[in-house]
Parts: sequence; structure tokens; C-alpha cells
Amino acid sequence: MTKADLSLIPIGRVESPLTDPADAPKQGPEGAPDAHLVLDASVLEGLEGVVPGARVIVLTWLDRARRDVLRVHPRDDPRNPERGVFSTRSADRPNPIGLHEVEVLSIDGERVRVRHLEAVDGTPILDLKPVI
Amino acid sequence: MTKADLSLIPIGRVESPLTDPADAPKQGPEGAPDAHLVLDASVLEGLEGVVPGARVIVLTWLDRARRDVLRVHPRDDPRNPERGVFSTRSADRPNPIGLHEVEVLSIDGERVRVRHLEAVDGTPILDLKPVI
Repeated sequence: MTKADLSLIPIGRVESPLTDPADAPKQGPEGAPDAHLVLDASVLEGLEGVVPGARVIVLTWLDRARRDVLRVHPRDDPRNPERGVFSTRSADRPNPIGLHEVEVLSIDGERVRVRHLEAVDGTPILDLKPVI
Repeated sequence: MTKADLSLIPIGRVESPLTDPADAPKQGPEGAPDAHLVLDASVLEGLEGVVPGARVIVLTWLDRARRDVLRVHPRDDPRNPERGVFSTRSADRPNPIGLHEVEVLSIDGERVRVRHLEAVDGTPILDLKPVI
């Protein structure tokens, strides 16, 4: 396998009133605003079957994260002892893929409105999967 | 952002008795075997805090998937009407990232034994996250 095989292609972007990562809650249910997933027209066909009320997992690329970090203070709080990133949900990790479980509120063409998304405006979207 | 920014780096590989994707259950609880996550020594520090009994989400790169597919028959069954990939857990999708929720059984250095993993032997591992 060549490295080129592991290149991600964004399928869209988050559109959100959240613009500063410092304002973003650590997890969606902790007060994150509703937001739009704006998908590329080229992948719109893949949305068939995603309906209002569905619970979906949004995979994002946390493009402001540090990829060279293996230990962090959980929840960015220096009072918490450092731990390995794989035992935390820190954005900083070798492959900064975000998982966000949200409810679909409405769909209008390539714009999917979702409840309580903690990703900031402009975050690349990688995938949507149904919650099982 | 350049495309190079979205390149994934495998942090390890799945070691499993499952070698043929045709034998793999669609989801772990549907009879998948126990398996090892064999991590690269370079990321071992990130494992601190992952302990036996923990439930973790393993992110994998489904390297045999088709990336040019936007509609599939759910569960590869032609009797199921075609649907958009984002409403299914099909491996075939623009960014074939697998999510597998598993229980950690034991940890021996860079080898993490987990229960019921449906990924086949050799599958690249991208990340581990705690279940919240």
C-alpha cells in the first residue's frame, strides 16, 4: 500500500455559528449549537435514506489539531494528570478524526441541519454513518 | 488547506484469524472473533490510560473498499433496495473509515487484545477513542 491510498477527500464542510475553538464545548450535548453540514454536490446521491429524526455519526477532520502529541491533559485542564491520547477524546492525536453523534433536523438539497454539533465553522466533513 | 494535510498515518494493524472479507460479519457482535490491535512502537505512549475492560472505538482504514460508490444494497444483499452510502454502514464510501466498538481484554506492550472485531487481518488502524 502506498501512502497516497490513505488520502482523505472532504465531502463537505460544517457551517456553524461556532468560529473559535476556545468557545466550542468538548462534546455536543454540552451546549453546542445547531449547525449545517453542507455537502459537496458530487456526493449528494449518498444522502438518499438519511431522513429528519435520524441519528448519525458525523466524521470530521479536526484541521486545527496537533498531530505530534501522544499525551494530553484530559479536557485541556492542566489539573487533570496527563494521559495517552487514545484514552481521551482530545482533538490532538496522530489522525485527528472527530466523531460527533447528532440528530438530523432537516435536509434541504445538500444542506443537512443537525442538532448540537461541537465542530467549528469550516471543519471538513469526511463521512456520515447511521448510529446502530 | 492542501490535500497533503488530509493524509492518514496508520498507527498499527489488525491481527486476526479473519482473512477473507467474505467471511467477516457485518458488525462485531454478529460473531466476529477476538483479535489483536498491534500498534506501532512510535505511538505506544498514547496507550497510557487504556486498560482491560475499557470500551473503545477502533477507527480503521477499510483498504479493500471502493471509494467511487455512492449507492449500495444494504448488507450487500441484492434483495435490499439501493440506498445512499451515508445511510448505511457499507465499507464502500468516499472515505472508507471503519468504526468498531470493542472491549479491551488485555494489553501486552504494543499488543492490545479486543473482543469481537469484524475487521480482517492486516487492516490499518487509524485511531482509538474511549466510548463516552
